[in-house]
Order: sequence, then C-alpha cells, then structure tokens
Amino acid sequence: MSQSEYRVLVVGLGSMGAGVAKSCVAASLDTYGLDLDQQRCEELMATGATYAGAAINDDVAAQLDAVVMLLVNAHQCRAVLFGEGGLAERLSAGSAVMLSSTMAADDAISIAAELEQKGLHVLDAPVSGGAAKAASGDLSVMAAGQPQVFEQLSPVLTAIAAHVHRVGTTIGQGATVKIIHQLLAGVHIAAAAEAMALASRADISMEALYQVVTSSAGNSWMFENRMRHVLDGDYTPHSAVDIFVKDLGLVNETGLNLRFPLPLASTAYTMFANASNAGFGKEDDAAVIKTFAGITLPEKGGKSS
Amino acid sequence: MSQSEYRVLVVGLGSMGAGVAKSCVAASLDTYGLDLDQQRCEELMATGATYAGAAINDDVAAQLDAVVMLLVNAHQCRAVLFGEGGLAERLSAGSAVMLSSTMAADDAISIAAELEQKGLHVLDAPVSGGAAKAASGDLSVMAAGQPQVFEQLSPVLTAIAAHVHRVGTTIGQGATVKIIHQLLAGVHIAAAAEAMALASRADISMEALYQVVTSSAGNSWMFENRMRHVLDGDYTPHSAVDIFVKDLGLVNETGLNLRFPLPLASTAYTMFANASNAGFGKEDDAAVIKTFAGITLPEKGGKSS
Repeated sequence: MSQSEYRVLVVGLGSMGAGVAKSCVAASLDTYGLDLDQQRCEELMATGATYAGAAINDDVAAQLDAVVMLLVNAHQCRAVLFGEGGLAERLSAGSAVMLSSTMAADDAISIAAELEQKGLHVLDAPVSGGAAKAASGDLSVMAAGQPQVFEQLSPVLTAIAAHVHRVGTTIGQGATVKIIHQLLAGVHIAAAAEAMALASRADISMEALYQVVTSSAGNSWMFENRMRHVLDGDYTPHSAVDIFVKDLGLVNETGLNLRFPLPLASTAYTMFANASNAGFGKEDDAAVIKTFAGITLPEKGGKSS
Repeated sequence: MSQSEYRVLVVGLGSMGAGVAKSCVAASLDTYGLDLDQQRCEELMATGATYAGAAINDDVAAQLDAVVMLLVNAHQCRAVLFGEGGLAERLSAGSAVMLSSTMAADDAISIAAELEQKGLHVLDAPVSGGAAKAASGDLSVMAAGQPQVFEQLSPVLTAIAAHVHRVGTTIGQGATVKIIHQLLAGVHIAAAAEAMALASRADISMEALYQVVTSSAGNSWMFENRMRHVLDGDYTPHSAVDIFVKDLGLVNETGLNLRFPLPLASTAYTMFANASNAGFGKEDDAAVIKTFAGITLPEKGGKSS
C-alpha cells in the first residue's frame, strides 16, 4: 500500500490535533478530521485534508487504517469511541487506534481493553512538543504497545514525530510517562512564573532575567517558551492554565494511587488551581504568574514592566 | 597594556574558581590563584599559572589589576578581604574586585561599600554554567556595576564568559539575579529527582524517561545534566547538595525580606535540607533523589535500575 492510500482520521482538532492532521496531509496521507467546531474543520480542509467535519460516515470509518485520538481527556475519548453511534463499532477489525490524549494509565488501559475486544489494535501514545512542533511534524511521541502496532502506525508516526520513544510494551506505560513528563512541564512553568514574579518584586528587569536564565544552567524549555509570553504581555492560550490544572491533577492522582509523595507537583497544582480559581483558567498557562500580588507585569504592546 | 601584562588573582580554586583561573591562563592573562588546598594550587600551576598558593605576598597584591572572588559564601569573602592581613588593605587603589560568589544582595552591597572606601572598584558579578563551562571559558556572568568597572574587567570577562549580562548599575542587582537564577536551578534539580523517582516507583524505565524528557518540552538544563548522574549511579559532587541548601536558603531569605511567597523554592529547600540531614550533603546535588523511599536507583557500574 502506498502512503497516499493510507487513511488516517484525527479526532480532535485543537492546537495539537490540528497540527498532527496538517502533518499527516503534508506526508501525503489520506487525512480526515473530526471536530465539532466548524471553523477548525474548515482550516484543516484548507490544508488539503480529504474531509473534516462533525461526523464521519460509516463507509469512511470502515476504510480507515488508523485513528489518532487527540481530545482533551479520557472522558471525551470514551464518548467519541463508545457513545451512541461511536467510532469503535464502525472501524474495521485490525485497524489501529492511537491514544494520544493525556490521560491516567488506568483510563488508557480500560479504553484499550474495550477497543481490543472489538478486534482493534491500540497504541498508548501520548505526544509532547506544543502546537508549533505538532504543525511541523516534529513532536515527541512516548508510546507503549506491541511492535506490530508501532509498525502498523509507522506512516502516522513518521508524519508527526521527530522522536518516537518506545517506552514499553504494556498499555498504560505511555500514559504514565506522559504524566511524569507533565509533572516536569507544569513545575517548570510555575517555577518560571515564581522566578519572574520575584524579579519584578525585587526591582530586577524581567527582560534582563530572561536573557540571563536562557543562557544559563537555570534554563528550561518552558521558561524560554512561556516567559516570552509574559514579557510580551500576551496570554493568548497556546495551552491554557486549565490544561495544567487537569494534567497536574493526573500527576497527583498517580502519586496518590502509589502512595508516593510529590512535594513539587502538589505545590505546582495548587498554583495552577489558584490561577484558575482567580479567573485565568482560559488564558495561556503563563498566566499563573498573575496570582502573585504586588508585582507589575508587562502589558501587550510594550507598556510597563 | 597588553593582555599578558594584565594581572588577575582568582580567590578560591574550587570547581568554579579552578575553571575560571584556567580560562584566564588560556587567555594569556598573568594569572594567580589563592586557595588553602595545596593540591588545587598545584593543579592550577600545572596549567601555566604564574603562582598559586595559600598566601599572596604584598608585592604581588599591590600589582594586581583584578581579583575574582569565587569562594563559597560572603563570610569567606569577608575573611579573605578584611580579616587579619586581608587582601583589601594590600591591593592598590583603583584595582578591581569582581564579587562572583553567590551571596545575598545585602552582603554584596556591604562588601562593595567597604572595598570602595579603600579606593577599589567593584563589580557585583555572579556566574553560572558549572565546572565544565568554567574550564572552557564559556560561563554566563550576570553583573551589576558602573560601566568603567566592566571596562576595567573586560580582559577577565572575555577570558571566562560566553555571555556577559549587564543586569544593572547598582551593586546588589547581580547578586539578586543570581539568587533568582538559583531558585530555578534548585527547583529544576528537585523536580527532576521527583519525576525520576516517580518513574522508578511506577515501574517506568528511568533511562526511557530520560530519553523522552530530554527531547520534549519538559526538559531543563538541570534535568539533562544531573539525571545523567542518577542513571550512572555517580554522585561525585560536581556541585554538592549542601550548595543548594545554602543557595535555596538565600532564595528564601530574599523572599522573606520582601515578604514575597515562594511556594516552589521553599518546597525545594525542604527537599535539599532533607537530603543533607539524611547524610547526603557532600554528594552531588542529584542525590536529593535518595530521599525518596521505595525506589530502586541505578548503581555505579551498571547494576540495577
């Protein structure tokens, strides 16, 4: 089968899903998109996708080689797969489902079991990299599953990822690695906000601190990426505060289930929950800095600092 | 004056000072070293330094263009500069002292004031980058002071730094930026340890997690650098746990003085204090991971994981 005959459906065309679908189109896969938001669907169609809309007809569903789930959470995945008229019933046995939403390992395990009962193949394959890397096909995939499922999904993996990490063969291990990754991502954003807020309070130029940190050992990917938003006063949500309320919630549930202490992750969760509770939940996650009182933040368009 | 006539003394030949002195030698500066440890002095002499020892004679002191202070803390700096037979009395008026130890802004301010009373010029100039970058002349310097003092110290700054950040003109601002930098560095090490410990507890390969994180948005400079030590089971102290007990202590004192909340820095401080209290104070700072019970860490030479 040539790549152009490989049919892939991306479910969820948010910042990650839209980029993944676009990368599939760019790799000449026969690409379909599913999202309730009509504008998102139109944007994907404009990139050359075969179809994008709020529903997939049965004929198309039966001919899909692969489905990539990029919804916000396990609850949404279950609704699309197993709800009334759900996808799982309409896919052909032997086709592959890639679970790429961030979810608890237990959810990945139970969703995979239900899919496998229907003869479908499952890869537990969360992704990282943000919207820009999704769009350029440079994501990191942290996946667990059987070698033949990796093989089956290789046209998709090649299209969307710069790195495909095989973290294990047991469903749930991919989800767990993603959750541990989010522990770091969330703590780094909160630490970046704490440091920049302290700079402001101590009358240090936040721009100077940014220059120092990004060329020093205190740097993190998140500091460099997100604190630019703070300096620009631009809280357009590339990834929202509420995503980290959810993801650090999953981190702490994981710790709770294992009775394992996570002092920094629990503190960072409180900081994001505090931000959401203060009304910043839909803003960029860098808005966690707004919970610090007594500081002056740059405004969009260059005012203040 | 040609560079070879520029005389610089590096005080404190620990991992940072030794590298800085070596970089000065490599830049053909006339380089002197001061340290109580004879072996460290011999190592510097072997790189081509003019002199290194436990004392500097008056003639040499009077002819120095610059002194770089790289001792562990403000207390040690005061002892060497202002103690009996201290350096400050023996330097010629107009020569420059670069305060590069990590210390509280108040200490930098009071030490600088005392030096300036003696006619000396002071740059508040902490450094970052670790032993390897110190040795290769690629440090980041975050400095505050008058433009003419930057100019006076430019042969040294050129020799030791890839980046010289001018963070302000007021003594104390460099120290504060370094302290805020250490907030990030310390939180990142503690978060890295927390994440790797959780991986071990959740039966995820720590090596796999390392590969995922270092190619993803959850990466930090400290994760990539320090967790390699954990994977190698090698806790040789390139920078010790007790350094971060000290530095995160300074971070929290800074917050206390400003009545500013630092939820992550205070949590990370507790983690390092916990590690020191458990007997790991002199080990590499990555040993903070040893405070997590119920996990299996790699041993040196490749056993376990």
